[in-house]
Amino acid sequence: MKIITKVREMQSISQSMRAEGRIIVLVPTMGYFHEGHVTLMKRAKSLGDIVITSLFVNPTQFAPNEDFTKYPRDFGRDSEIAAGAGVDYLFSPEPDEMYPEGVYSKIIIGDIASKFEGVKRPGHFDGVATIVAKLFNATLPHIAVFGQKDYQQTLVIKRLVEDFLFNIKIVISPTVRQTDGLAMSSRNIYLSTIERSNADIIFKALNEATNAILNGEKRRKFINGIMHATLRTIPGLQIDYATSSDAYNFDEPEEFIPGQRIVLLIACYIGKTRLIDNALVTLPSSLSAKPEKFVEDIQ
Amino acid sequence: MKIITKVREMQSISQSMRAEGRIIVLVPTMGYFHEGHVTLMKRAKSLGDIVITSLFVNPTQFAPNEDFTKYPRDFGRDSEIAAGAGVDYLFSPEPDEMYPEGVYSKIIIGDIASKFEGVKRPGHFDGVATIVAKLFNATLPHIAVFGQKDYQQTLVIKRLVEDFLFNIKIVISPTVRQTDGLAMSSRNIYLSTIERSNADIIFKALNEATNAILNGEKRRKFINGIMHATLRTIPGLQIDYATSSDAYNFDEPEEFIPGQRIVLLIACYIGKTRLIDNALVTLPSSLSAKPEKFVEDIQ
Repeated sequence: MKIITKVREMQSISQSMRAEGRIIVLVPTMGYFHEGHVTLMKRAKSLGDIVITSLFVNPTQFAPNEDFTKYPRDFGRDSEIAAGAGVDYLFSPEPDEMYPEGVYSKIIIGDIASKFEGVKRPGHFDGVATIVAKLFNATLPHIAVFGQKDYQQTLVIKRLVEDFLFNIKIVISPTVRQTDGLAMSSRNIYLSTIERSNADIIFKALNEATNAILNGEKRRKFINGIMHATLRTIPGLQIDYATSSDAYNFDEPEEFIPGQRIVLLIACYIGKTRLIDNALVTLPSSLSAKPEKFVEDIQ
Repeated sequence: MKIITKVREMQSISQSMRAEGRIIVLVPTMGYFHEGHVTLMKRAKSLGDIVITSLFVNPTQFAPNEDFTKYPRDFGRDSEIAAGAGVDYLFSPEPDEMYPEGVYSKIIIGDIASKFEGVKRPGHFDGVATIVAKLFNATLPHIAVFGQKDYQQTLVIKRLVEDFLFNIKIVISPTVRQTDGLAMSSRNIYLSTIERSNADIIFKALNEATNAILNGEKRRKFINGIMHATLRTIPGLQIDYATSSDAYNFDEPEEFIPGQRIVLLIACYIGKTRLIDNALVTLPSSLSAKPEKFVEDIQ
């Protein structure tokens, strides 16, 4: 695995690879790799010839009150993990390589970026869309792989690609979970032992709501209420949002309709650590069977 | 010359050309070609192997009160002119091909986009930056050629390329003028005979200010005053702006400093027709010689 720090060198390598007909797959990350990242890298390897993992903690997607400086970093460990996962190029530029003129221009994504995380983290998705556009131009991939865990981000990225005509296929990879269902996240290290043992409540809340929907529940507020009630069994847990909406456009109807694809979205603080998770579920068209089902991820 | 209307087909052609090692040069236009466009196309031909001219009247760069629907169009004539100028591909998509989801995401360019034209045409440069980014992704050029006549636009495009790491070389081509100095423009057709004969005042104003600077004039307001006074000799001419600034960052100091590169910028209405023009000039470091010089363009 080669470590690349300069945009021009990365572009030059990618152009050569493209000229040779090799399929380039990008996995954009902010580092501090866990099993979720490794899964994305291996998925990438299965999709093309050359895997580029970018490692860049992007300052513009953190709000002023957020954890940019204390975001966990461990480059030595990350490069070992990436190499072990079959990554060909680890692209890890310094901030002044990605923002040589400072932060000047930016991409604004419309409505889907303004709900949920967009309310709680103003400017976050503009920062995400802007850096991902830059990473696309720096690495020139045919395919880019993102994790479903940041569900709203995946919709923002798909919108970015459609709206700016990037000829890049976006692949969404299912969330990787601990045994008890907690989604893998670089922020999990902040959890105390007791917080960690309580954190499985998020997965439980998603499953409760999922099963209600699979049993025919279509009233959005009722579905949301299930998640809230489940989360509130943990003292000190603070809910940012626990909500359901159309999985494609984030519409929030009074009642979902049979066959509608629904996303369940949770963001909450356990102690001082903010965690997010989500699940996808389709409201059944008929209820001949009443399946019990765990959280569904993108196939 | 082939006419391409679909983004996917254009991308596919460009990717094949790139794989063959051919240098692709893009000339983005809004059509209604005149000698200025032909000069850009020929310049493009001299810079690479394959010339793509895009012809797209971009709705998002017109303000609601502007002339989008009445912007002149003549596809038959345009395609003949382009073919005659050596263009290989005329890329002329319909609006729903460039904005398949409607207008959703956009690029915001910072400070340099907010002055001068940015004041008079709010949102104009966001529309320009957004469509040019899309055209870059649709045509995948190595080089793109723009006319100096839209000077502020050239700075916006350079900023777009730098900030989003597009690996594209931007070439600025000098303004093509009529015998009396009037800059070529698709909008010149709107001028009545008397307006047309008065319109050379813009070039005269640029030359008066240029010569003052070459003779050592460094007071910005005085330089601007020269342009205003010259323009005002034409009854009914309405000045939008006639101003001078640093040519690279649009700073507007009280006094320019020796060696500083200055841009003179004029926008005015002659009758109902809005015309713009500009000139570049360097404040001399010493005044051993006092040259008389016509409007200078980018070399």
